[in-house]
Amino acid sequence: MVWNTTNLDELPVYGKLMKLARNPFDLTASGAISPERIKAYKASAAGFDLLFATQRLDGAGLNGLQQLADQSGALDQFHGMKSGAVMNRIDGHESEERQVLHTACRDIFNETPCHVEAAGQAKEQLEKLKAFLAELDKGELVNEQGESYTDYVNIGIGGSDLGPRAVYHALSAYLLKSRRVHFISNVDPDDAAAVLKKLDLSRTLVGVVSKSGSTLETLTNEEIVRGAYVEAGLNPKKFFVAITGQSSPMDNPEKYLRSFYMYDYIGGRYSATSMVGAVMLGFGLGYDALIEILRGANDMDKAAEEKDIKKNPALLLALLGIWNHNFLGHGTVAVLPYSQALLRFPAHLQQCDMESNGKSVTRNGEKVSGVTGPIIWGEPGTNGQHAFYQLLHQGTTVVPAEFIGFRQSQYGEDLLLKGTTSQEKLVANLLAQSLALATGRKDDNPNRFFSGNRPSSVLLSDKLTPYTMGGLLALYEAKIVFQGFIWNINSFDQEGVQLGKVLANRFLEHFNILRQAGEKDREQHPESWLMLEAAGFFQED
Amino acid sequence: MVWNTTNLDELPVYGKLMKLARNPFDLTASGAISPERIKAYKASAAGFDLLFATQRLDGAGLNGLQQLADQSGALDQFHGMKSGAVMNRIDGHESEERQVLHTACRDIFNETPCHVEAAGQAKEQLEKLKAFLAELDKGELVNEQGESYTDYVNIGIGGSDLGPRAVYHALSAYLLKSRRVHFISNVDPDDAAAVLKKLDLSRTLVGVVSKSGSTLETLTNEEIVRGAYVEAGLNPKKFFVAITGQSSPMDNPEKYLRSFYMYDYIGGRYSATSMVGAVMLGFGLGYDALIEILRGANDMDKAAEEKDIKKNPALLLALLGIWNHNFLGHGTVAVLPYSQALLRFPAHLQQCDMESNGKSVTRNGEKVSGVTGPIIWGEPGTNGQHAFYQLLHQGTTVVPAEFIGFRQSQYGEDLLLKGTTSQEKLVANLLAQSLALATGRKDDNPNRFFSGNRPSSVLLSDKLTPYTMGGLLALYEAKIVFQGFIWNINSFDQEGVQLGKVLANRFLEHFNILRQAGEKDREQHPESWLMLEAAGFFQED
Repeated sequence: MVWNTTNLDELPVYGKLMKLARNPFDLTASGAISPERIKAYKASAAGFDLLFATQRLDGAGLNGLQQLADQSGALDQFHGMKSGAVMNRIDGHESEERQVLHTACRDIFNETPCHVEAAGQAKEQLEKLKAFLAELDKGELVNEQGESYTDYVNIGIGGSDLGPRAVYHALSAYLLKSRRVHFISNVDPDDAAAVLKKLDLSRTLVGVVSKSGSTLETLTNEEIVRGAYVEAGLNPKKFFVAITGQSSPMDNPEKYLRSFYMYDYIGGRYSATSMVGAVMLGFGLGYDALIEILRGANDMDKAAEEKDIKKNPALLLALLGIWNHNFLGHGTVAVLPYSQALLRFPAHLQQCDMESNGKSVTRNGEKVSGVTGPIIWGEPGTNGQHAFYQLLHQGTTVVPAEFIGFRQSQYGEDLLLKGTTSQEKLVANLLAQSLALATGRKDDNPNRFFSGNRPSSVLLSDKLTPYTMGGLLALYEAKIVFQGFIWNINSFDQEGVQLGKVLANRFLEHFNILRQAGEKDREQHPESWLMLEAAGFFQED
Repeated sequence: MVWNTTNLDELPVYGKLMKLARNPFDLTASGAISPERIKAYKASAAGFDLLFATQRLDGAGLNGLQQLADQSGALDQFHGMKSGAVMNRIDGHESEERQVLHTACRDIFNETPCHVEAAGQAKEQLEKLKAFLAELDKGELVNEQGESYTDYVNIGIGGSDLGPRAVYHALSAYLLKSRRVHFISNVDPDDAAAVLKKLDLSRTLVGVVSKSGSTLETLTNEEIVRGAYVEAGLNPKKFFVAITGQSSPMDNPEKYLRSFYMYDYIGGRYSATSMVGAVMLGFGLGYDALIEILRGANDMDKAAEEKDIKKNPALLLALLGIWNHNFLGHGTVAVLPYSQALLRFPAHLQQCDMESNGKSVTRNGEKVSGVTGPIIWGEPGTNGQHAFYQLLHQGTTVVPAEFIGFRQSQYGEDLLLKGTTSQEKLVANLLAQSLALATGRKDDNPNRFFSGNRPSSVLLSDKLTPYTMGGLLALYEAKIVFQGFIWNINSFDQEGVQLGKVLANRFLEHFNILRQAGEKDREQHPESWLMLEAAGFFQED
């Protein structure tokens, strides 16, 4: 391996940071959040500013974090990843042994991309998609009645659902006229039923997304939806599009109108800018908006190679997260977008971050000695202020917060009320929360006392557009892989989901046996059988 | 005060539980999850079964928890609360000094309710609502064109949004034909714009929900929506309904078609079964379904008075939460409903639980010595399995899980694929996850090793109906107040949200000054002014 695989606690700077953490910067001290600090504690790139004066560190801590970045070789590894290194592996043990090239999906604006072959494949798929979308726009691809397609159902789960859905929600202000997208993901049959209920299937395309072409939930939902088409007297083949690996069982022109490819060097949770997100987003927002998403992501990918943490918000956010988690001992992170459009963004991050970094084994196959990925959660503000902020301010647990905000609204439809617009009210609340968490407030009434010293960052951009949404996606993707590099873990596999699958099959066998009535395999799997009985699914004779 | 206000660590059983926690039940031992254990570790009431064989305790621990319930006087306090005791207070300090009577909203089925006056007020409001809904159904209340109302917009935030919205999502399978409800909550102007875009206002009623009649976000959104009506040539007065405190500024027949009342003895986060949820749910689901919700909640409220924890799932869930948090040291709880319809239920619980119990001061006005409310988060399964379950199984942090599932689907539209239905697949996955987290799995490949001993409970019911949804709401409400009683904190105020409001006003003043151009109040509030500058809202000369 060409990159550093030293564990965090073996890096030279580790001891220094541990020492600093014993007495972290006091945000409640008078004048602590000084004019100089507010100006200086800011990192900017690709249309985003990261304000972090409300974090618990000063110049020494910040130097320590820069050293941590340097000593861990985080940037070399990031560049290696973009260039096609086999980062998805565990040394000395059977593992996926794959490249990690989601950045190639948007590395289409330079004459010399980091990885020529992957960028070429990305361009090829984009060309295919561009042609498909043009046929729809020009009315060349229509239904049997000659009507255009107005709706699109995305069937996928995990990365084939969460990231694309978050982006779609974020950008629904930019939807093409009379285009709508719907999502079916859960194996819960009510999920599909609720979506189908409201659609005119004769004007609806369906995108089925599965890299392997064998995801249980997705195939089940595809069957349900195909059944609905047949029942409506429609031939599913004319409506269904496959987004899958080349030559997977789903790459079959007899069953699908078109196929778009994803490649095994792109993990599901990093796939929003691949065809996984692109086909659906292209349908809803148009090809040009899609390209803007990719441009924003690519610009952030480039900024993520900056050595100076003040010019690299993704790297700095990663380092601040490690400071709060490994050194100050805070086990969760609240992601708090002050934008209703980002409602589903925390759910995407839950997958992207927790599935990547919820690991206990280093890339050398040893048990990690410290903590790795934190718990990520959050809801949009100001809603959250009327919900769980009580705990953020006065609970017994300190929760580092990552605020996200925009200077302008998407629709531009706003109202001046009591001297300020709604957008100003939104931003005022965001900044106020950050400051309140940091400074706290003394009060003689113990129930009105705020301890302060609760760290947060504020990530700001002008407006939530396709371009900045692409940047935001890429910023967090880069943050996550930087943290994985520094923890020396493999952020690209997900062995932890296997055991649940094995046991689910055991329960499914029981259901199968119950259906066929009579025989029972109690001897083989007593707990699972008895759990099913205790759960009320049958009465033991 | 008539109730116990002893702190948790001063109760006689505390030491015993601490001792047991040093060596908690090992779920990974061979035969640990025995047939006897699976059968015995189950608590049932009001249509729900709580299976907890996969928690880290045995008979001694369970006895300890029963003693904890008894010694803390949790049930006496619960009964006191239902009967009108002033539970919302801090001894010796200025505090809200209110009764806590959300249970009265559904205490309408007995001749002798726990609190006669509050139950009487609940009945009175329900009668008023019944008459209003009947006018809509019979076509007596129609628009100027004589058309019926098809849509309803709920404007509210916090408890006036999260709980009602979660219930509406959960029960949308039971929507009346051609009735739809929409929600506007965020001060983000894009939230209102996105909703208004898709509505025919001439057939849309608007419910504005604010107990005080002065919630900033709600009034702002109301103004925006009123403006849209005026612009469409419609008189808002004929479309707007107020849900507010009697004689609040919003209780004004000149501005609203009708008023429905909420009372100061009902906290926002406990208000889903009051008029706050009832008007919207009655519109969407009909009056009879609304009454079923109340019946389910009332039945659970009654079960929550059971002394035996095996007959009181709400109390048991509270105790297991304290066992995991205070004794085993796990700081978060994942709520994982295996039902897409419960998509928004975790967000409701985040408010209800974290705003109630994210406190650091006891009811005696002292700093609490241990931890109080945990961080609550979650997403529906099986989606979560393809997202953050990696961390649940193999992360460095143990996250106790509360699974929620149903034996039947809502729509009954299901498909037999590979020998099982989708609903069976859903339940098989739920039970499998619970078992996998508990037992873990040995493996020579360290990356495929599962440590196990990760605790969970499984809450099951037959089907998600209005009745069981009411029960589920009430079960968690009771769980939360039981925990507050045992921690000896006031679960009914929210002083922690005040500081943010004060500081937000400071930022709003700055925006106001910027608008009027020229003067700046830098001297007064340097940090907030400079934060606004650093955030890019203006350039300092």
